[in-house]
Amino acid sequence: MLRQAVHRLQVRTRGAGLYDVTPELRGWVARQGIREGLVTVFIRHTSASLVVQENADPDVLADLAAFLRRVVPEGDPAYRHTTEGPDDMPAHIRSALTATQVSIPIVDGDLALGTWQAVYVFEHRAAFHVRELVLHLAGE
Amino acid sequence: MLRQAVHRLQVRTRGAGLYDVTPELRGWVARQGIREGLVTVFIRHTSASLVVQENADPDVLADLAAFLRRVVPEGDPAYRHTTEGPDDMPAHIRSALTATQVSIPIVDGDLALGTWQAVYVFEHRAAFHVRELVLHLAGE
Amino acid sequence: MLRQAVHRLQVRTRGAGLYDVTPELRGWVARQGIREGLVTVFIRHTSASLVVQENADPDVLADLAAFLRRVVPEGDPAYRHTTEGPDDMPAHIRSALTATQVSIPIVDGDLALGTWQAVYVFEHRAAFHVRELVLHLAGE
Repeated sequence: MLRQAVHRLQVRTRGAGLYDVTPELRGWVARQGIREGLVTVFIRHTSASLVVQENADPDVLADLAAFLRRVVPEGDPAYRHTTEGPDDMPAHIRSALTATQVSIPIVDGDLALGTWQAVYVFEHRAAFHVRELVLHLAGE
Repeated sequence: MLRQAVHRLQVRTRGAGLYDVTPELRGWVARQGIREGLVTVFIRHTSASLVVQENADPDVLADLAAFLRRVVPEGDPAYRHTTEGPDDMPAHIRSALTATQVSIPIVDGDLALGTWQAVYVFEHRAAFHVRELVLHLAGE
Repeated sequence: MLRQAVHRLQVRTRGAGLYDVTPELRGWVARQGIREGLVTVFIRHTSASLVVQENADPDVLADLAAFLRRVVPEGDPAYRHTTEGPDDMPAHIRSALTATQVSIPIVDGDLALGTWQAVYVFEHRAAFHVRELVLHLAGE
Protein backbone atom coordinates (compact mmCIF):
# COMPACT_ATOMS: atom_id res chain seq x y z
CA MET A 1 0.00 0.00 0.00
CA LEU A 2 1.31 3.47 -0.89
CA ARG A 3 2.43 5.69 1.95
CA GLN A 4 4.10 9.09 2.10
CA ALA A 5 6.50 11.24 4.08
CA VAL A 6 7.46 14.91 4.11
CA HIS A 7 10.61 16.60 5.35
CA ARG A 8 12.06 20.08 5.56
CA LEU A 9 15.69 20.43 4.60
CA GLN A 10 17.72 23.57 5.24
CA VAL A 11 20.66 24.40 3.01
CA ARG A 12 23.20 27.04 3.98
CA THR A 13 24.52 28.86 0.92
CA ARG A 14 27.67 30.97 0.95
CA GLY A 15 27.22 33.16 -2.09
CA ALA A 16 26.08 32.54 -5.65
CA GLY A 17 26.75 29.06 -6.99
CA LEU A 18 25.50 25.48 -7.06
CA TYR A 19 25.24 23.40 -3.89
CA ASP A 20 24.89 19.63 -4.22
CA VAL A 21 22.03 18.34 -2.06
CA THR A 22 22.03 14.80 -3.46
CA PRO A 23 23.60 13.21 -0.35
CA GLU A 24 21.00 14.74 2.00
CA LEU A 25 18.19 13.85 -0.40
CA ARG A 26 19.44 10.29 -0.91
CA GLY A 27 19.96 9.82 2.84
CA TRP A 28 16.48 10.97 3.77
CA VAL A 29 14.87 8.78 1.11
CA ALA A 30 16.90 5.75 2.26
CA ARG A 31 15.69 6.22 5.85
CA GLN A 32 12.02 6.06 4.77
CA GLY A 33 12.28 2.42 3.68
CA ILE A 34 10.53 3.04 0.36
CA ARG A 35 11.60 0.70 -2.46
CA GLU A 36 9.63 2.27 -5.30
CA GLY A 37 8.02 5.67 -5.53
CA LEU A 38 8.51 9.33 -6.33
CA VAL A 39 10.37 12.00 -4.40
CA THR A 40 9.63 15.68 -5.01
CA VAL A 41 12.00 18.49 -4.08
CA PHE A 42 10.50 21.97 -3.79
CA ILE A 43 12.44 25.14 -2.98
CA ARG A 44 10.56 27.79 -1.01
CA HIS A 45 12.31 30.77 -2.61
CA THR A 46 12.23 32.81 -5.81
CA SER A 47 15.84 34.05 -5.84
CA ALA A 48 17.35 30.57 -5.55
CA SER A 49 16.32 27.57 -7.61
CA LEU A 50 16.92 23.89 -8.34
CA VAL A 51 18.71 22.22 -11.20
CA VAL A 52 19.72 18.66 -12.04
CA GLN A 53 23.16 18.84 -13.59
CA GLU A 54 26.43 17.01 -14.10
CA ASN A 55 28.25 15.77 -11.00
CA ALA A 56 31.63 15.12 -12.62
CA ASP A 57 33.39 18.22 -13.99
CA PRO A 58 32.89 21.30 -11.78
CA ASP A 59 33.63 23.43 -14.87
CA VAL A 60 30.14 22.52 -16.15
CA LEU A 61 28.61 24.21 -13.11
CA ALA A 62 30.93 27.20 -13.41
CA ASP A 63 30.08 27.62 -17.10
CA LEU A 64 26.35 27.34 -16.42
CA ALA A 65 26.53 30.01 -13.71
CA ALA A 66 28.69 32.24 -15.94
CA PHE A 67 26.19 31.88 -18.79
CA LEU A 68 23.34 33.06 -16.58
CA ARG A 69 25.43 35.95 -15.25
CA ARG A 70 26.04 37.08 -18.81
CA VAL A 71 22.51 36.62 -20.21
CA VAL A 72 20.80 37.92 -17.05
CA PRO A 73 23.24 40.62 -15.94
CA GLU A 74 23.32 42.57 -12.72
CA GLY A 75 22.63 46.27 -12.92
CA ASP A 76 20.58 46.18 -16.10
CA PRO A 77 19.17 49.75 -16.29
CA ALA A 78 15.86 48.25 -17.48
CA TYR A 79 15.19 46.71 -14.05
CA ARG A 80 12.55 48.50 -12.01
CA HIS A 81 12.93 46.21 -8.97
CA THR A 82 16.17 47.53 -7.46
CA THR A 83 15.35 48.07 -3.78
CA GLU A 84 16.74 44.71 -2.63
CA GLY A 85 20.16 45.20 -4.25
CA PRO A 86 21.65 44.75 -7.73
CA ASP A 87 21.74 40.95 -7.43
CA ASP A 88 18.08 40.47 -6.52
CA MET A 89 16.24 41.00 -9.80
CA PRO A 90 18.66 38.86 -11.84
CA ALA A 91 18.26 36.20 -9.13
CA HIS A 92 14.50 36.15 -9.73
CA ILE A 93 14.96 35.83 -13.50
CA ARG A 94 17.63 33.13 -13.21
CA SER A 95 15.29 31.23 -10.89
CA ALA A 96 12.43 31.47 -13.40
CA LEU A 97 14.71 30.09 -16.14
CA THR A 98 15.73 27.05 -14.09
CA ALA A 99 13.43 25.08 -11.72
CA THR A 100 11.49 25.57 -8.50
CA GLN A 101 10.66 21.88 -8.20
CA VAL A 102 11.94 18.55 -9.43
CA SER A 103 10.48 15.06 -8.96
CA ILE A 104 12.65 11.94 -9.23
CA PRO A 105 11.44 8.34 -9.35
CA ILE A 106 12.68 5.90 -6.69
CA VAL A 107 13.66 2.48 -8.04
CA ASP A 108 15.15 -0.33 -5.92
CA GLY A 109 15.22 1.97 -2.91
CA ASP A 110 17.35 4.68 -4.51
CA LEU A 111 16.90 7.82 -6.60
CA ALA A 112 16.76 6.87 -10.30
CA LEU A 113 19.30 9.56 -11.18
CA GLY A 114 21.61 8.96 -14.10
CA THR A 115 25.25 8.16 -13.40
CA TRP A 116 26.32 11.75 -14.03
CA GLN A 117 23.39 13.55 -12.38
CA ALA A 118 23.20 15.43 -9.11
CA VAL A 119 20.53 17.71 -7.64
CA TYR A 120 21.73 21.23 -6.87
CA VAL A 121 20.37 24.23 -5.05
CA PHE A 122 21.26 27.08 -7.39
CA GLU A 123 21.90 30.13 -5.22
CA HIS A 124 21.63 33.32 -7.25
CA ARG A 125 22.25 35.87 -4.50
CA ALA A 126 25.60 37.11 -3.22
CA ALA A 127 24.88 37.10 0.52
CA PHE A 128 24.87 33.99 2.70
CA HIS A 129 21.39 32.46 2.98
CA VAL A 130 19.58 29.60 4.66
CA ARG A 131 17.42 28.09 1.93
CA GLU A 132 14.53 25.80 2.80
CA LEU A 133 13.51 22.80 0.72
CA VAL A 134 10.39 20.71 1.25
CA LEU A 135 10.74 17.05 0.30
CA HIS A 136 7.73 14.84 -0.38
CA LEU A 137 7.98 11.10 -0.92
CA ALA A 138 5.21 8.68 -1.88
CA GLY A 139 5.72 5.00 -2.55
CA GLU A 140 5.88 1.60 -0.94
CA MET B 1 -4.58 5.72 3.34
CA LEU B 2 -3.58 7.89 0.36
CA ARG B 3 -6.33 9.20 -1.87
CA GLN B 4 -6.41 11.59 -4.81
CA ALA B 5 -8.50 14.22 -6.58
CA VAL B 6 -8.33 15.99 -9.94
CA HIS B 7 -9.80 19.30 -11.01
CA ARG B 8 -9.91 21.49 -14.11
CA LEU B 9 -9.36 25.18 -13.53
CA GLN B 10 -10.00 27.80 -16.20
CA VAL B 11 -8.06 31.06 -16.11
CA ARG B 12 -9.11 34.02 -18.23
CA THR B 13 -6.09 36.01 -19.38
CA ARG B 14 -6.33 39.55 -20.73
CA GLY B 15 -3.09 39.92 -22.64
CA ALA B 16 0.52 39.04 -21.90
CA GLY B 17 1.48 39.01 -18.23
CA LEU B 18 1.39 37.00 -15.03
CA TYR B 19 -1.88 35.95 -13.40
CA ASP B 20 -1.83 34.77 -9.80
CA VAL B 21 -3.74 31.50 -9.40
CA THR B 22 -2.62 30.82 -5.82
CA PRO B 23 -6.03 31.65 -4.27
CA GLU B 24 -7.91 29.25 -6.56
CA LEU B 25 -5.27 26.57 -6.07
CA ARG B 26 -5.20 27.01 -2.29
CA GLY B 27 -9.03 27.06 -2.13
CA TRP B 28 -9.43 23.84 -4.10
CA VAL B 29 -6.77 22.05 -2.04
CA ALA B 30 -8.42 23.21 1.21
CA ARG B 31 -11.78 21.78 0.11
CA GLN B 32 -10.27 18.30 -0.43
CA GLY B 33 -9.53 17.81 3.27
CA ILE B 34 -5.98 16.59 2.65
CA ARG B 35 -3.50 17.38 5.46
CA GLU B 36 -0.34 16.12 3.81
CA GLY B 37 0.38 15.36 0.19
CA LEU B 38 1.40 16.76 -3.17
CA VAL B 39 -0.51 18.99 -5.56
CA THR B 40 0.49 19.18 -9.22
CA VAL B 41 -0.49 22.02 -11.53
CA PHE B 42 -0.30 21.34 -15.27
CA ILE B 43 -1.09 23.87 -18.00
CA ARG B 44 -2.59 22.45 -21.19
CA HIS B 45 -0.97 24.99 -23.52
CA THR B 46 2.37 25.71 -25.18
CA SER B 47 2.07 29.49 -25.60
CA ALA B 48 1.32 30.13 -21.91
CA SER B 49 3.23 28.64 -19.00
CA LEU B 50 3.57 28.45 -15.22
CA VAL B 51 6.04 30.09 -12.90
CA VAL B 52 6.46 30.33 -9.13
CA GLN B 53 7.58 33.86 -8.40
CA GLU B 54 7.54 36.66 -5.86
CA ASN B 55 4.16 37.82 -4.60
CA ALA B 56 5.28 41.11 -3.04
CA ASP B 57 6.67 43.66 -5.50
CA PRO B 58 4.82 43.67 -8.87
CA ASP B 59 7.97 45.17 -10.43
CA VAL B 60 9.57 41.71 -10.15
CA LEU B 61 6.89 40.31 -12.45
CA ALA B 62 7.16 43.28 -14.81
CA ASP B 63 10.94 42.93 -15.01
CA LEU B 64 10.71 39.18 -15.63
CA ALA B 65 8.22 39.70 -18.47
CA ALA B 66 10.35 42.52 -19.91
CA PHE B 67 13.45 40.31 -19.81
CA LEU B 68 11.70 37.59 -21.82
CA ARG B 69 10.38 40.15 -24.32
CA ARG B 70 13.93 41.37 -24.88
CA VAL B 71 15.69 37.98 -25.06
CA VAL B 72 12.88 36.30 -27.04
CA PRO B 73 11.72 39.17 -29.23
CA GLU B 74 8.68 39.38 -31.45
CA GLY B 75 9.26 39.58 -35.17
CA ASP B 76 12.67 37.91 -35.21
CA PRO B 77 13.31 37.38 -38.94
CA ALA B 78 14.77 33.96 -38.09
CA TYR B 79 11.33 32.60 -37.13
CA ARG B 80 9.78 30.25 -39.65
CA HIS B 81 6.53 29.80 -37.68
CA THR B 82 4.75 33.08 -38.40
CA THR B 83 1.25 32.06 -39.49
CA GLU B 84 -0.32 32.52 -36.07
CA GLY B 85 0.88 36.09 -35.61
CA PRO B 86 4.12 37.77 -34.49
CA ASP B 87 3.50 36.96 -30.81
CA ASP B 88 3.00 33.20 -31.25
CA MET B 89 6.52 31.87 -31.82
CA PRO B 90 8.06 33.93 -29.00
CA ALA B 91 5.20 32.65 -26.79
CA HIS B 92 6.25 29.07 -27.50
CA ILE B 93 9.89 29.81 -26.69
CA ARG B 94 9.06 31.75 -23.52
CA SER B 95 6.90 28.81 -22.42
CA ALA B 96 9.75 26.36 -23.01
CA LEU B 97 12.07 28.52 -20.89
CA THR B 98 9.65 28.59 -17.94
CA ALA B 99 7.44 25.68 -16.79
CA THR B 100 4.53 23.60 -18.03
CA GLN B 101 4.04 21.90 -14.66
CA VAL B 102 4.82 22.51 -11.02
CA SER B 103 4.24 20.25 -8.01
CA ILE B 104 3.99 21.65 -4.49
CA PRO B 105 3.95 19.67 -1.24
CA ILE B 106 0.98 20.04 1.10
CA VAL B 107 1.90 20.34 4.78
CA ASP B 108 -0.58 20.93 7.60
CA GLY B 109 -3.39 21.22 5.07
CA ASP B 110 -1.85 24.06 3.08
CA LEU B 111 0.53 24.56 0.16
CA ALA B 112 4.11 24.59 1.45
CA LEU B 113 4.91 27.75 -0.52
CA GLY B 114 7.46 30.14 0.91
CA THR B 115 6.25 33.41 2.40
CA TRP B 116 7.04 35.34 -0.78
CA GLN B 117 5.92 32.75 -3.34
CA ALA B 118 2.86 32.67 -5.55
CA VAL B 119 1.93 30.46 -8.52
CA TYR B 120 1.32 32.34 -11.74
CA VAL B 121 -0.07 31.53 -15.15
CA PHE B 122 2.37 33.29 -17.46
CA GLU B 123 0.41 34.39 -20.52
CA HIS B 124 2.70 35.06 -23.45
CA ARG B 125 0.12 35.97 -26.08
CA ALA B 126 -1.45 39.37 -26.70
CA ALA B 127 -5.06 38.30 -27.27
CA PHE B 128 -7.47 37.35 -24.48
CA HIS B 129 -7.46 33.61 -23.79
CA VAL B 130 -9.14 31.04 -21.58
CA ARG B 131 -6.29 28.87 -20.30
CA GLU B 132 -7.00 25.46 -18.81
CA LEU B 133 -5.07 24.00 -15.90
CA VAL B 134 -5.39 20.45 -14.60
CA LEU B 135 -4.80 20.03 -10.88
CA HIS B 136 -3.93 16.67 -9.32
CA LEU B 137 -3.74 16.12 -5.59
CA ALA B 138 -2.66 12.98 -3.74
CA GLY B 139 -2.34 12.69 0.01
CA GLU B 140 -4.24 11.90 3.18
CA MET C 1 -6.85 2.30 -3.56
CA LEU C 2 -3.85 4.06 -5.14
CA ARG C 3 -1.21 1.92 -6.77
CA GLN C 4 1.91 2.69 -8.79
CA ALA C 5 4.12 1.46 -11.59
CA VAL C 6 7.56 2.36 -12.92
CA HIS C 7 9.08 1.81 -16.33
CA ARG C 8 12.32 2.51 -18.15
CA LEU C 9 12.01 3.84 -21.66
CA GLN C 10 14.94 4.08 -24.06
CA VAL C 11 14.90 6.69 -26.81
CA ARG C 12 17.36 6.56 -29.70
CA THR C 13 18.29 10.06 -30.85
CA ARG C 14 19.96 10.78 -34.18
CA GLY C 15 21.48 14.19 -33.62
CA ALA C 16 20.24 17.41 -32.06
CA GLY C 17 16.48 17.96 -32.22
CA LEU C 18 13.15 17.11 -30.63
CA TYR C 19 11.87 13.53 -30.49
CA ASP C 20 8.19 12.95 -29.74
CA VAL C 21 7.77 10.32 -27.02
CA THR C 22 4.03 10.87 -26.50
CA PRO C 23 2.98 7.61 -28.23
CA GLU C 24 5.29 5.47 -26.06
CA LEU C 25 4.25 7.37 -22.93
CA ARG C 26 0.55 7.14 -23.75
CA GLY C 27 0.85 3.45 -24.64
CA TRP C 28 2.58 2.51 -21.40
CA VAL C 29 0.07 4.47 -19.31
CA ALA C 30 -2.85 2.81 -21.14
CA ARG C 31 -1.46 -0.66 -20.37
CA GLN C 32 -1.41 0.05 -16.61
CA GLY C 33 -5.21 0.30 -16.39
CA ILE C 34 -5.11 3.52 -14.36
CA ARG C 35 -8.12 5.81 -14.87
CA GLU C 36 -6.98 8.75 -12.78
CA GLY C 37 -3.55 9.62 -11.50
CA LEU C 38 -0.24 11.28 -12.28
CA VAL C 39 2.54 10.18 -14.60
CA THR C 40 6.05 11.55 -14.16
CA VAL C 41 8.69 11.50 -16.89
CA PHE C 42 12.30 11.89 -15.78
CA ILE C 43 15.32 11.98 -18.11
CA ARG C 44 18.54 10.52 -16.72
CA HIS C 45 20.85 12.91 -18.58
CA THR C 46 22.14 16.48 -18.36
CA SER C 47 22.91 17.09 -22.04
CA ALA C 48 19.41 16.14 -23.23
CA SER C 49 16.17 17.36 -21.69
CA LEU C 50 12.38 17.27 -21.83
CA VAL C 51 9.92 19.81 -23.13
CA VAL C 52 6.17 19.88 -23.67
CA GLN C 53 5.59 21.70 -26.94
CA GLU C 54 3.30 22.05 -29.94
CA ASN C 55 2.57 18.91 -31.95
CA ALA C 56 1.17 20.62 -35.06
CA ASP C 57 3.65 22.79 -36.96
CA PRO C 58 7.20 21.33 -37.00
CA ASP C 59 8.48 24.88 -37.61
CA VAL C 60 7.73 25.61 -33.94
CA LEU C 61 10.22 22.93 -32.91
CA ALA C 62 12.78 24.10 -35.47
CA ASP C 63 12.47 27.71 -34.28
CA LEU C 64 12.80 26.68 -30.63
CA ALA C 65 15.95 24.69 -31.37
CA ALA C 66 17.36 27.55 -33.48
CA PHE C 67 16.69 30.03 -30.68
CA LEU C 68 18.67 27.91 -28.21
CA ARG C 69 21.51 27.46 -30.70
CA ARG C 70 21.74 31.24 -31.04
CA VAL C 71 21.42 32.19 -27.34
CA VAL C 72 23.58 29.27 -26.13
CA PRO C 73 26.14 29.02 -28.95
CA GLU C 74 28.72 26.35 -29.56
CA GLY C 75 32.35 27.34 -29.22
CA ASP C 76 31.83 30.25 -26.85
CA PRO C 77 35.40 31.12 -25.78
CA ALA C 78 34.08 31.66 -22.24
CA TYR C 79 33.43 27.92 -21.80
CA ARG C 80 35.94 26.13 -19.58
CA HIS C 81 34.36 22.68 -20.06
CA THR C 82 35.56 21.79 -23.55
CA THR C 83 36.99 18.29 -23.21
CA GLU C 84 33.82 16.52 -24.37
CA GLY C 85 33.52 18.49 -27.61
CA PRO C 86 32.14 21.87 -28.66
CA ASP C 87 28.51 20.72 -28.41
CA ASP C 88 28.69 19.42 -24.84
CA MET C 89 28.71 22.57 -22.71
CA PRO C 90 25.90 24.26 -24.67
CA ALA C 91 23.96 20.99 -24.31
CA HIS C 92 24.23 21.24 -20.51
CA ILE C 93 23.06 24.87 -20.53
CA ARG C 94 20.18 24.18 -22.93
CA SER C 95 19.12 21.29 -20.67
CA ALA C 96 19.15 23.54 -17.61
CA LEU C 97 16.94 26.08 -19.42
CA THR C 98 14.33 23.47 -20.34
CA ALA C 99 13.22 20.54 -18.12
CA THR C 100 14.64 17.36 -16.62
CA GLN C 101 11.24 16.16 -15.43
CA VAL C 102 7.59 16.70 -16.25
CA SER C 103 4.49 15.31 -14.51
CA ILE C 104 1.15 15.04 -16.31
CA PRO C 105 -2.23 14.22 -14.74
CA ILE C 106 -4.14 11.19 -16.01
CA VAL C 107 -7.87 11.79 -16.49
CA ASP C 108 -10.30 9.21 -17.91
CA GLY C 109 -7.43 6.83 -18.53
CA ASP C 110 -5.42 9.19 -20.74
CA LEU C 111 -2.78 11.89 -20.39
CA ALA C 112 -4.49 15.24 -19.75
CA LEU C 113 -2.39 16.93 -22.44
CA GLY C 114 -3.92 19.81 -24.36
CA THR C 115 -4.97 19.25 -27.96
CA TRP C 116 -1.77 20.77 -29.30
CA GLN C 117 0.69 19.35 -26.77
CA ALA C 118 3.26 16.58 -27.12
CA VAL C 119 6.12 15.47 -24.86
CA TYR C 120 9.55 15.63 -26.48
CA VAL C 121 13.01 14.44 -25.64
CA PHE C 122 15.14 17.44 -26.56
CA GLU C 123 18.50 16.10 -27.73
CA HIS C 124 21.17 18.77 -27.56
CA ARG C 125 24.17 16.75 -28.72
CA ALA C 126 25.25 16.06 -32.29
CA ALA C 127 26.16 12.37 -31.98
CA PHE C 128 23.62 9.55 -31.88
CA HIS C 129 22.63 8.62 -28.33
CA VAL C 130 20.43 6.19 -26.44
CA ARG C 131 18.63 8.32 -23.85
CA GLU C 132 16.97 6.71 -20.86
CA LEU C 133 13.72 7.95 -19.34
CA VAL C 134 12.20 6.70 -16.10
CA LEU C 135 8.41 6.80 -15.97
CA HIS C 136 6.49 6.72 -12.70
CA LEU C 137 2.72 6.40 -12.51
CA ALA C 138 0.51 6.55 -9.42
CA GLY C 139 -3.27 6.40 -9.48
CA GLU C 140 -6.23 4.06 -9.49
